[in-house]
Amino acid sequence: MTEIKPRELPPKSNFIKWYNSVLKLADIADKRYPIKGTFVWLPYGVKLMRNIKEHWDKLFQESGISEILVPLFVSRKNAEANKKWYEGFQKNLYSAVLPTGKSQFILRPTGEPAMYPLFSLWIKDYGLPLRVYETVSSYRYESRTTHTLIRDREITFWYEIHTAHKTKKESEEEAQTHLEIIRKIWKYLSIPPIVVNKPPYEVFPGAVGAIEAYTILPDGRLLENGSINILGQAYSRIYDITYMDEEGKKQYVWQICTGNGARYLAAVIALHGDDRGLCLPPTIAPVQCIIVPIMQKKSKQEVEAECLKLKEKLREAGIRVEIDLRENITPGEKFYQWEIKGVPVRIEMGPREIQKKCLTVFRRDLLTRETVESDKIIEYLNGLMSDIGATLENRVKKLFDSKVKDFDTIEDAFKWVRKGGVAKVSWCGEQPCYERICETEQAIEAIGTLLETEKKHECIVCKKETTNRTLVSKIY
Amino acid sequence: MTEIKPRELPPKSNFIKWYNSVLKLADIADKRYPIKGTFVWLPYGVKLMRNIKEHWDKLFQESGISEILVPLFVSRKNAEANKKWYEGFQKNLYSAVLPTGKSQFILRPTGEPAMYPLFSLWIKDYGLPLRVYETVSSYRYESRTTHTLIRDREITFWYEIHTAHKTKKESEEEAQTHLEIIRKIWKYLSIPPIVVNKPPYEVFPGAVGAIEAYTILPDGRLLENGSINILGQAYSRIYDITYMDEEGKKQYVWQICTGNGARYLAAVIALHGDDRGLCLPPTIAPVQCIIVPIMQKKSKQEVEAECLKLKEKLREAGIRVEIDLRENITPGEKFYQWEIKGVPVRIEMGPREIQKKCLTVFRRDLLTRETVESDKIIEYLNGLMSDIGATLENRVKKLFDSKVKDFDTIEDAFKWVRKGGVAKVSWCGEQPCYERICETEQAIEAIGTLLETEKKHECIVCKKETTNRTLVSKIY
Repeated sequence: MTEIKPRELPPKSNFIKWYNSVLKLADIADKRYPIKGTFVWLPYGVKLMRNIKEHWDKLFQESGISEILVPLFVSRKNAEANKKWYEGFQKNLYSAVLPTGKSQFILRPTGEPAMYPLFSLWIKDYGLPLRVYETVSSYRYESRTTHTLIRDREITFWYEIHTAHKTKKESEEEAQTHLEIIRKIWKYLSIPPIVVNKPPYEVFPGAVGAIEAYTILPDGRLLENGSINILGQAYSRIYDITYMDEEGKKQYVWQICTGNGARYLAAVIALHGDDRGLCLPPTIAPVQCIIVPIMQKKSKQEVEAECLKLKEKLREAGIRVEIDLRENITPGEKFYQWEIKGVPVRIEMGPREIQKKCLTVFRRDLLTRETVESDKIIEYLNGLMSDIGATLENRVKKLFDSKVKDFDTIEDAFKWVRKGGVAKVSWCGEQPCYERICETEQAIEAIGTLLETEKKHECIVCKKETTNRTLVSKIY
Repeated sequence: MTEIKPRELPPKSNFIKWYNSVLKLADIADKRYPIKGTFVWLPYGVKLMRNIKEHWDKLFQESGISEILVPLFVSRKNAEANKKWYEGFQKNLYSAVLPTGKSQFILRPTGEPAMYPLFSLWIKDYGLPLRVYETVSSYRYESRTTHTLIRDREITFWYEIHTAHKTKKESEEEAQTHLEIIRKIWKYLSIPPIVVNKPPYEVFPGAVGAIEAYTILPDGRLLENGSINILGQAYSRIYDITYMDEEGKKQYVWQICTGNGARYLAAVIALHGDDRGLCLPPTIAPVQCIIVPIMQKKSKQEVEAECLKLKEKLREAGIRVEIDLRENITPGEKFYQWEIKGVPVRIEMGPREIQKKCLTVFRRDLLTRETVESDKIIEYLNGLMSDIGATLENRVKKLFDSKVKDFDTIEDAFKWVRKGGVAKVSWCGEQPCYERICETEQAIEAIGTLLETEKKHECIVCKKETTNRTLVSKIY
């Protein structure tokens, strides 16, 4: 499916409007589906998301984590068995009702109550450590404002890694392995995430700790973007997940679970895009290079033939390349459409280029044109692709730096947050102080302790000395 | 996850018992999930199914059909709008209930009532023909006996192609395109499907016609395995799917929808497997070649080094190869485990092979060993892989031939069916005669008109002359 009509995009400074428009105009999501909090993935969006998913599949499997697929229906009994989990999700649960009117199941909001009752069986079959993941859709009846890819009621392309270990130490090492993998995914997306340790009163229901990644969106709001939950033995004691130790004694396992999904794409769209639409890292772009022929009637045949030759050459070099031969629209319109779709590189070729044995290469990130000798094009493009990745990452770093400012008083911090900024403050880590730096009604929250170590400061609330720093901002 | 313990498989003559055992022992499906009609896909099963899915993705996309993803929740109103569809599925529908107790949605049993209300919008955006597909899980509360991958209540890896066309003729050509694609998928799986035209009283609710593929399972039962539904304008009139013709007049589109999924894998398992377990076509085998070192303590280092070299060589040649270096089990146990998993080729290498510069190559389909010169191994394996594919396909052809016998009387036909056979009979195509050659209580059914043309015969019921032939058998 290729869109025919030209379309209009609001400026990115009007962030949410821009975001919703770009989702439709770049053929990512159609929000006209008649059920709130759900949408249709359009063809370009599916390709883009699959490129991200293929990368996490590769990283998980290289790390020895095996893919499984667990049913959507979860026995209500198994869900209720885990009181903290059930209390945490109760308000968000969809039930599945049979045609007979019976309602024994809930629809999976997260995987634990579906998977963990089988974990002891799998430990018997496969031994320890047990390391599995699934990529599924999950369902949560969200009462907060929904935003496509950011907070949906049908959460698509959602991965969850679940692991079980003999010792606490091994499970902690596993959490670090997950963090390394997550950092690799973000690197692939040219985005440097902000990583924090969550305080114990702000973790996944029943967990004993958590590491979380965040991104700052262009409107200054923080978006939680992937979490590693340290479950300790809390869940293994509930679901009786055990193994026999060397003395034949039953022992509970130590567990880690880690999840994220389409929010990766939300960050890619929001952080790299500009007033002209998407701007994709070449790693995940469904089309890395678009060739647009520039010609009059008399040069048509020659130009098209040269363009097709070039396409073949690029394809052989492993570049995802397309050629736009549509005749009913002008080159300018083609430029516009491929720019909305964020294609990293455009090659323009006309009689002038053919004559001079060169190519006009446009890069989407900087909106600049270069003339490149035809016989050096592959080398040039390979360099360009990695340069675009680095340029995008630097731009996001700068954006984050411009949003984050240090503050010593809550008043000044909140003032900055209300202006669309992110406040960095010192904070002792205690719950009463945490509650003072959040304003739930305005969705202002602190995100936990930044992983970076800092020199000693005073807690912005109680003035106790601390090395902990956190970010405070509005949250999606 | 790699299974440690040896396990027992019943003989294939005890088909359903064998089938269920092989699903677990080959790490395809775990049926211990506590909800009837659902199961957990295990790692080897996921890999295997993904290899099949990747092939249909490739074929659909090469044909210009675009992948989308439509929500699971379907508005009850949109479902009820289509009376025939709703009547057809009513008994099988799961409802989704919100935490508030409201029940406005059903869970998708098929895609039409979810997709078609958006089709007019997409036609405006993208023009005609509209050709899309999705691969999803669908949900049907089946009252018939469930069998993993054959009839599940959670139908995983289910693809649906939906297309809309300006003319009846174009839609009929589309149906033929789908049939060609389906034949390519079956070829890839080394299985020759049986294809029929369904009589109009046996089609998808509301459709005007259907082409269906069937496979015969080893117990002589027929398994419907993929259908192409010719919807005519029945659905476009209900969901108001229209376009403007050249005179500016509103016209209803002509539609085709085509679906299948995990039943491909059910057929692969059931038809190619044997008393030792799975037997996979190399096209889809997650591991095409397993290298097992044969060694004593003193030769360990040398043999392992040679095995690793060989693995690298095979991997570079594009072969999916693994090496089994486990030390806690014997080569015999390794053979047994990889045979259950259906790995097409095993290479055994020990000091004898290294000395003679040869390799011992075992093929899973024929259970035979050959000695091959080391420096000819790539060429040999490439030939072997395609030979295994052809051998498997021929074996299935022979199995089908042995099951199907011609009959002139209903009595004899049913006798053969009750013995586990498939009866081929002539049949005029009329509904009263159709009903006479089915016995719903015993699940004996006719499957429609075989595509092959035949000379004239008499209808087995009414004795009218006809060229129609059909198969009658028990149905899964």
